[in-house]
Amino acid sequence: MPNTILKLSCPDHVGLLSRISGWVAHHGGNLVEVHQFTDPEAGWFFARMEIDTHTLHEDLPTLREQFEPLATELKAVWTLRPAEARPRVVVMVSKLGHCLADLLWRWRSGELAFDIPCVIGNHDDCRKMVEREGIPFHCIQVPSDQKERAFKKIATLWHEARADSVVLARYMQVVPPNLCAAWPGRIINIHHSFLPSFVGANPYQRAHDRGVKLIGATCHYVTEELDAGPIIDQEVIRVEHFHTVPDLVRLGRDCERIALARSLRWHLADRILIHGGKTVVFRD
Amino acid sequence: MPNTILKLSCPDHVGLLSRISGWVAHHGGNLVEVHQFTDPEAGWFFARMEIDTHTLHEDLPTLREQFEPLATELKAVWTLRPAEARPRVVVMVSKLGHCLADLLWRWRSGELAFDIPCVIGNHDDCRKMVEREGIPFHCIQVPSDQKERAFKKIATLWHEARADSVVLARYMQVVPPNLCAAWPGRIINIHHSFLPSFVGANPYQRAHDRGVKLIGATCHYVTEELDAGPIIDQEVIRVEHFHTVPDLVRLGRDCERIALARSLRWHLADRILIHGGKTVVFRD
Amino acid sequence: MPNTILKLSCPDHVGLLSRISGWVAHHGGNLVEVHQFTDPEAGWFFARMEIDTHTLHEDLPTLREQFEPLATELKAVWTLRPAEARPRVVVMVSKLGHCLADLLWRWRSGELAFDIPCVIGNHDDCRKMVEREGIPFHCIQVPSDQKERAFKKIATLWHEARADSVVLARYMQVVPPNLCAAWPGRIINIHHSFLPSFVGANPYQRAHDRGVKLIGATCHYVTEELDAGPIIDQEVIRVEHFHTVPDLVRLGRDCERIALARSLRWHLADRILIHGGKTVVFRD
Amino acid sequence: MPNTILKLSCPDHVGLLSRISGWVAHHGGNLVEVHQFTDPEAGWFFARMEIDTHTLHEDLPTLREQFEPLATELKAVWTLRPAEARPRVVVMVSKLGHCLADLLWRWRSGELAFDIPCVIGNHDDCRKMVEREGIPFHCIQVPSDQKERAFKKIATLWHEARADSVVLARYMQVVPPNLCAAWPGRIINIHHSFLPSFVGANPYQRAHDRGVKLIGATCHYVTEELDAGPIIDQEVIRVEHFHTVPDLVRLGRDCERIALARSLRWHLADRILIHGGKTVVFRD
Repeated sequence: MPNTILKLSCPDHVGLLSRISGWVAHHGGNLVEVHQFTDPEAGWFFARMEIDTHTLHEDLPTLREQFEPLATELKAVWTLRPAEARPRVVVMVSKLGHCLADLLWRWRSGELAFDIPCVIGNHDDCRKMVEREGIPFHCIQVPSDQKERAFKKIATLWHEARADSVVLARYMQVVPPNLCAAWPGRIINIHHSFLPSFVGANPYQRAHDRGVKLIGATCHYVTEELDAGPIIDQEVIRVEHFHTVPDLVRLGRDCERIALARSLRWHLADRILIHGGKTVVFRD
Repeated sequence: MPNTILKLSCPDHVGLLSRISGWVAHHGGNLVEVHQFTDPEAGWFFARMEIDTHTLHEDLPTLREQFEPLATELKAVWTLRPAEARPRVVVMVSKLGHCLADLLWRWRSGELAFDIPCVIGNHDDCRKMVEREGIPFHCIQVPSDQKERAFKKIATLWHEARADSVVLARYMQVVPPNLCAAWPGRIINIHHSFLPSFVGANPYQRAHDRGVKLIGATCHYVTEELDAGPIIDQEVIRVEHFHTVPDLVRLGRDCERIALARSLRWHLADRILIHGGKTVVFRD
Repeated sequence: MPNTILKLSCPDHVGLLSRISGWVAHHGGNLVEVHQFTDPEAGWFFARMEIDTHTLHEDLPTLREQFEPLATELKAVWTLRPAEARPRVVVMVSKLGHCLADLLWRWRSGELAFDIPCVIGNHDDCRKMVEREGIPFHCIQVPSDQKERAFKKIATLWHEARADSVVLARYMQVVPPNLCAAWPGRIINIHHSFLPSFVGANPYQRAHDRGVKLIGATCHYVTEELDAGPIIDQEVIRVEHFHTVPDLVRLGRDCERIALARSLRWHLADRILIHGGKTVVFRD
Repeated sequence: MPNTILKLSCPDHVGLLSRISGWVAHHGGNLVEVHQFTDPEAGWFFARMEIDTHTLHEDLPTLREQFEPLATELKAVWTLRPAEARPRVVVMVSKLGHCLADLLWRWRSGELAFDIPCVIGNHDDCRKMVEREGIPFHCIQVPSDQKERAFKKIATLWHEARADSVVLARYMQVVPPNLCAAWPGRIINIHHSFLPSFVGANPYQRAHDRGVKLIGATCHYVTEELDAGPIIDQEVIRVEHFHTVPDLVRLGRDCERIALARSLRWHLADRILIHGGKTVVFRD
């Protein structure tokens, strides 16, 4: 039986950890792993508690009901969920398949515990890679004059797939602000630069033009402002003068894959809390 | 007023964190930072709690007295100390001064909060560097036929200096087993290889002979078995075929300095717990 | 038209580079990329020259014939080949498919320019992954009492495949010494530790037991002595006290994949020269 | 006797390496280390050749004279110098002494081969650290309404010191454009961010505000545009949500020290060539 995870953030008070861990103990719960962080500037408290489910006296719905009054008092944003709940994640792609292929391998091998109800592309290039895994692939083109219509279709597909989250696996279209706003903290993007350097298009070309000695990738939550959402993880690799733009693209692929896989892992395991445009990540 | 730090390890039980954080809350203590780890294999519990001292109702001696019964019940190894207590650290050196110079800079600038009652060398090379900082330097030669006598003198100096800990900053003599046993978890060594590779002498030469592509340094607590004590931190750097042994020595110096400085920082801040030949490090 | 690559090692002399680059110039060749290394200890010279094939006055067989006398005089080991010659590489696997999957992706996408005539496993687990790419998969079991017979079959398959090189992609059988000796500098292994630490079986378990703070993977040429061949590349990742052995296995997979892919890339591009149990790698 | 270093860049032609290495061989020179790079986009050729001085038939002035015609024909920018010429480097500081202290240690220990004719600060904080090494310290304040006058004095000091290069070791004043233009490729700055992120003031605060997961330092040549000169080296370190701005400052110090020391090493050894706003670095 998987552990139970309590994730919570709220304004900071004296004795918060004691009250919350006391509440867990009162219901019989043995804490397997506890992370806590107090942001003194923001005056905000963040916690993640992993509880041995066997030791809990009540089932999850009952516990949620009983935690409600405390959470309300603390003005907390919170979830109480079984670990390994296999969230449903829709993957969005364009032509490049390296991040998708990597996610598919980690999904199939069981390294990452999630379900992929479908993959959506604005090109058809990745169809075969997806369908041979028995996953539906939808091609929704996004012509520049019909973006709104296209993203309506896409939003419908997300809802029909009962998606918990969406991963933009090098999806080369900008998700419209209204859709970003409707899915806060649920859309993950992998950007192929070391943000905030090289926001927007062609970051590898621009990194080459600037002559940087390290390139990188940034995984972040998508918000209405382009490439400005809360950063989850970043990865870099050293480059030298002899590396061409195609070399940077090649070397960057490994950064992208690893930053995305790691970020998705933490996201799936309820290890990330968002506050004030930044993330608290209780890494494992 | 500095925070108060409770460091504790004990056999694992249900509800430990709740009991301990409850005890802190009962004495008014607001938890600023909490780290906890349960080793399921060893069945052992480790915690470090940083408490806002202003919020505590009693002074430290009283709190220690009051924690005693709970600690005894839990069979805990524990300390309750003010952060920034400026522990007294004796530094041991031979001829090479790079780690010493680095520690002196971090000490003088206040980056690391500790006192250096004295530096002891088995050679005189580092005397000037030490004395110009106003720190006493003792040269205790260790002739191969008078090791016992030399280390008796050294042990006396450690005691006279009221040392809390000892740092072997590239000290090239093997500390005798009886002295290691008498100072468990209090002697820190920086070894110039990526342990367990290249235990013992001349690790850079042997790394070069083997043709490794990364070299490293390992900071560990000293135990009776050579280079086999609990590892605190390791640092590596990439090398290539064109690097000679002197190049490895040079590149390794930065690894050594950084691994040692980081480890000492954690040691001074009570962030390290030792159990079963390994460390739990609540990094900051 | 791909460039032409001259790879050469020989005893060091005065004026070697000048003579060899003069020979290239004499045949019209424009040097696109030149790497040279002199090992002063070994008294050995290593070079790799990438020549713009368009500028050469003669074809490859003629050039080889004309270079022969100079090479003989220099006592050189050398090759003169077109870049992107798509060497034939047999991949050996056991049950774990992560390195294989990674190689298949880099092969299919064209990131690595080689052909895979077949994959050989001592278990059948990876068959589907291979066959769906249109690559033959052979399962050759290696019972402990019939190793010799099994490896005879394997050697036959290598020859029938006209393999240039063999990659042991987490192949869990020890290749017998006679086979290693017959394929010098042509069998590449990925070992799941930071060599020379943890030679042999269960390196992740042993790394965990020792409490190291960094784990790694090592890609090396296979020689008759287990895990002692010339190292091509190593990759490491930081681990902490809370990482279990399965965590190390998971984190190590990315190290293995990347060290292997990078090493194979250099191998395929004639960027590696072996001398005295070590490699010279002219990285790109 | 130190080796002789030929550093050269020029428009690319067929047979350049052969001609230049042929010229060296013609004068008896044995090439110890050769680096070459052709930038196909820029159509530019870069080379660094380290020659065993014992094998050369002529002395340096004669060789320079004899190389002149070839260099002119090739339209080359070039130098021909003894390695370990101990260039004269003026160090500029403000209040923070960590980079200065690091350079002083590497200078005193002989790790870096250069002379420090003087250190100039716009504050007096570092005076003691400098003078106790027997190096003159000049305090030149830079009041916002007398910048021009102050930098006139500074330029005079640079000239009087017969400085080959200048290092801005966390010097917090902007060097005026005319002075930058007069010392092209000779002023090295260490900027405390991962450029091009966080150009200008307070990069650590801005990195913290943005919530990046890696911070860094960039060493670059100073040009008239702020923080936009050719990048020599960059170094990064991972940070987490619990790191405050003072933590970033502390962690960044090690990045700054290492990136600066490495860059200065390459600069002193004639391993850096500048072209089109970028550097070619023949790393060692």
